[in-house]
Amino acid sequence: MKQRMFFVPTLKEAPKDAEVKSHKLMGRAGLIKQLAAGIYTYLPLAQRVIRKIETIVREELDSRGCSEMLMPALQPRDIWDESGRWAEYGPELMRLKDRKERDFCLGPTHEEVITAAVREYVNSYKKLPLALYQIQTKFRDEMRPRFGLMRGREFIMKDLYTFSENGEDLDYWYNLMKEAYTRVFERVGLSTRIVSSDVGQIGGDTADEFMVMSEVGEDTITYCTSCAYATNQEFSGLKAGDTCPECGGTIATAKGIEVGNIFKLGTKYSESMNATFTDRDGKLKPIIMGCYGLGISRTLMAIVEQHSNDDGIVWPEEVRPFDVHIVPVQYKDEEHINKVNALYENLRSRYDCLLDDRDERAGVKFKDADLIGVPIRVVIGKGFADGVVELIDRRTNETREIPVEGLVEALSSLI
Amino acid sequence: MKQRMFFVPTLKEAPKDAEVKSHKLMGRAGLIKQLAAGIYTYLPLAQRVIRKIETIVREELDSRGCSEMLMPALQPRDIWDESGRWAEYGPELMRLKDRKERDFCLGPTHEEVITAAVREYVNSYKKLPLALYQIQTKFRDEMRPRFGLMRGREFIMKDLYTFSENGEDLDYWYNLMKEAYTRVFERVGLSTRIVSSDVGQIGGDTADEFMVMSEVGEDTITYCTSCAYATNQEFSGLKAGDTCPECGGTIATAKGIEVGNIFKLGTKYSESMNATFTDRDGKLKPIIMGCYGLGISRTLMAIVEQHSNDDGIVWPEEVRPFDVHIVPVQYKDEEHINKVNALYENLRSRYDCLLDDRDERAGVKFKDADLIGVPIRVVIGKGFADGVVELIDRRTNETREIPVEGLVEALSSLI
Repeated sequence: MKQRMFFVPTLKEAPKDAEVKSHKLMGRAGLIKQLAAGIYTYLPLAQRVIRKIETIVREELDSRGCSEMLMPALQPRDIWDESGRWAEYGPELMRLKDRKERDFCLGPTHEEVITAAVREYVNSYKKLPLALYQIQTKFRDEMRPRFGLMRGREFIMKDLYTFSENGEDLDYWYNLMKEAYTRVFERVGLSTRIVSSDVGQIGGDTADEFMVMSEVGEDTITYCTSCAYATNQEFSGLKAGDTCPECGGTIATAKGIEVGNIFKLGTKYSESMNATFTDRDGKLKPIIMGCYGLGISRTLMAIVEQHSNDDGIVWPEEVRPFDVHIVPVQYKDEEHINKVNALYENLRSRYDCLLDDRDERAGVKFKDADLIGVPIRVVIGKGFADGVVELIDRRTNETREIPVEGLVEALSSLI
Repeated sequence: MKQRMFFVPTLKEAPKDAEVKSHKLMGRAGLIKQLAAGIYTYLPLAQRVIRKIETIVREELDSRGCSEMLMPALQPRDIWDESGRWAEYGPELMRLKDRKERDFCLGPTHEEVITAAVREYVNSYKKLPLALYQIQTKFRDEMRPRFGLMRGREFIMKDLYTFSENGEDLDYWYNLMKEAYTRVFERVGLSTRIVSSDVGQIGGDTADEFMVMSEVGEDTITYCTSCAYATNQEFSGLKAGDTCPECGGTIATAKGIEVGNIFKLGTKYSESMNATFTDRDGKLKPIIMGCYGLGISRTLMAIVEQHSNDDGIVWPEEVRPFDVHIVPVQYKDEEHINKVNALYENLRSRYDCLLDDRDERAGVKFKDADLIGVPIRVVIGKGFADGVVELIDRRTNETREIPVEGLVEALSSLI
């Protein structure tokens, strides 16, 4: 990809309302652009990372027997009346009327839609279990949108719903999804902690959150300094210095970013919406449900929060937007451009490459390259006339001079 | 993928409101499910085809220098006031207020958002051209939603915007996108015709539509029976039997499905929204824009409309949801299941396979397989005990008996 047309509008100054590091960096590196409070455009660099996160999510879910579908954002009031949530949900639910004055909302979550879709199909235990998910844009009219993608009003979620004949099968899926989430967050480069939590507005019996332990974030986590005990403070009411209810150790607190949550819904929706099946004993029973959210856009932000240094982002391996950033110090006279392009074409047949083909000063290019954070950089400078380029590992800042003919081999040991 | 958990809720009867073949088939084959008028859930089979269409679109655009981003669905009123379209757009624009009573709409198109994003970045001809696109869910409150995905209220679009320094560059992109669209529609298996058209609510100078010539569809096309002349009847006012204005030949009419449209916008948005750049001559000028829509969900429907027979869908090669449908006539006793699964695992290491692992009668399985329309089917029947399976080419209905050990080779000549 050639950088000039790739649209990476880097900025000297962070957005004015940016309080946290990741928000500042994402604005400066040309990843996101605010359209209204809590509403962002994902620019091409961010979109590339988002698609990599989505691919990882799909791989981990599909390989565990889940199927992807896509549900509407516009949801009619009738199914929300059935579940009782049209009345229960506060002003965070964005509501609108269509041209015939019928009530709709913009889905913040899809329990009603999926339950309505499944109840007509599942009439017998033979059609269970089901594990269905989507990756979709969701809406929540937050009172105070802030921290960039962390608390937005329009955001990208993966939401998955399981349908089981009994509690043991729900437990099976709950644990399988815990495993899938753990693997997803490992692969995208996030260090997370599983924290037991309140069920909140979704309802149900048991809930766990996947938290990125971070100085920023919306939630306060209470955790034991001796054992694996960890909860959301809102849920436990514990404070720093209290005694751990599991092992008697000492409780500490931290501010965390919630990137995933999983709920044992039980029969909350299947009972109110009459989603039943004939069980092995011939009796009609409500389907046992689970739901599992994973914030795609929030994961992007958490990755930037955990993977940066003073100069910019340093993308983890599996979600890097490009493998190699090729930065010619100058990109002017035709013969030189042709030589640079030949090197670019050669590398791009092997790797995802970004070529900085802008007519900018070297200092501007280097600063932008640091901000953007592609892990491996090839600088084409003065030595190029003598067949030498500079290879920089953004992760360690290690710099080496490499003869052009040895470049592919040198890269293969790094990528 | 195992069919039992893949959620393919086939139906004996087509949806009651389905008037056209593709709508009936998509309902019966478990591809889509209506949630409200003009609002559909894409079930797992449809989602797989949609992702293949999207991949083809991305390949054809990225290879021509376009960059993908993702803009919000929620758009604040202020930018629509700038362009003048808040007042101009009728009730098809879905409008809502947020919790602070600020006006928003749900984007039916994104000229305002992209122009606002680009105008801050592009200050010089050096930063042009740009060609930016997204694949996104759009909203339009149709008076009479009908024909399933053909005239929906929530639908998936690819929309692309180009920014040029002059008319010649706009022409270059316009023709390049014509070429890209032609290639996309060829690859997804659609036969289309380019039809000159009215610019409508988007505005601008010149517009062309990509029409699937079909008995169903919303538009009437007037075309010449002698030369390549073709226009939308609304635009030309010509009737069947009239004289072709290009060659004097005879005009005929047909009802078509519009799957793509391209517009030379000119400076409509850049002037009203003050998106200017300093040109080579030092003068400040409005950027010259083009916009290019491609209906992803409508393309899915047009494919079904063009590719079916009396029994169901027959997917074109590049968008087939699976390569092979494995249909064991029975799927009961453990030893037999193990043998079937071994064959499935062997094939699935090479191809995308769907295994019908349901405990259903053979007739039900065969009917569903015809409906779903995976091009190649492997039927595991009585002969399996003697090491023989049946290979059916859904496209020709040619059926052959094949020894299991020759199956991979036989498939390799078909796929």
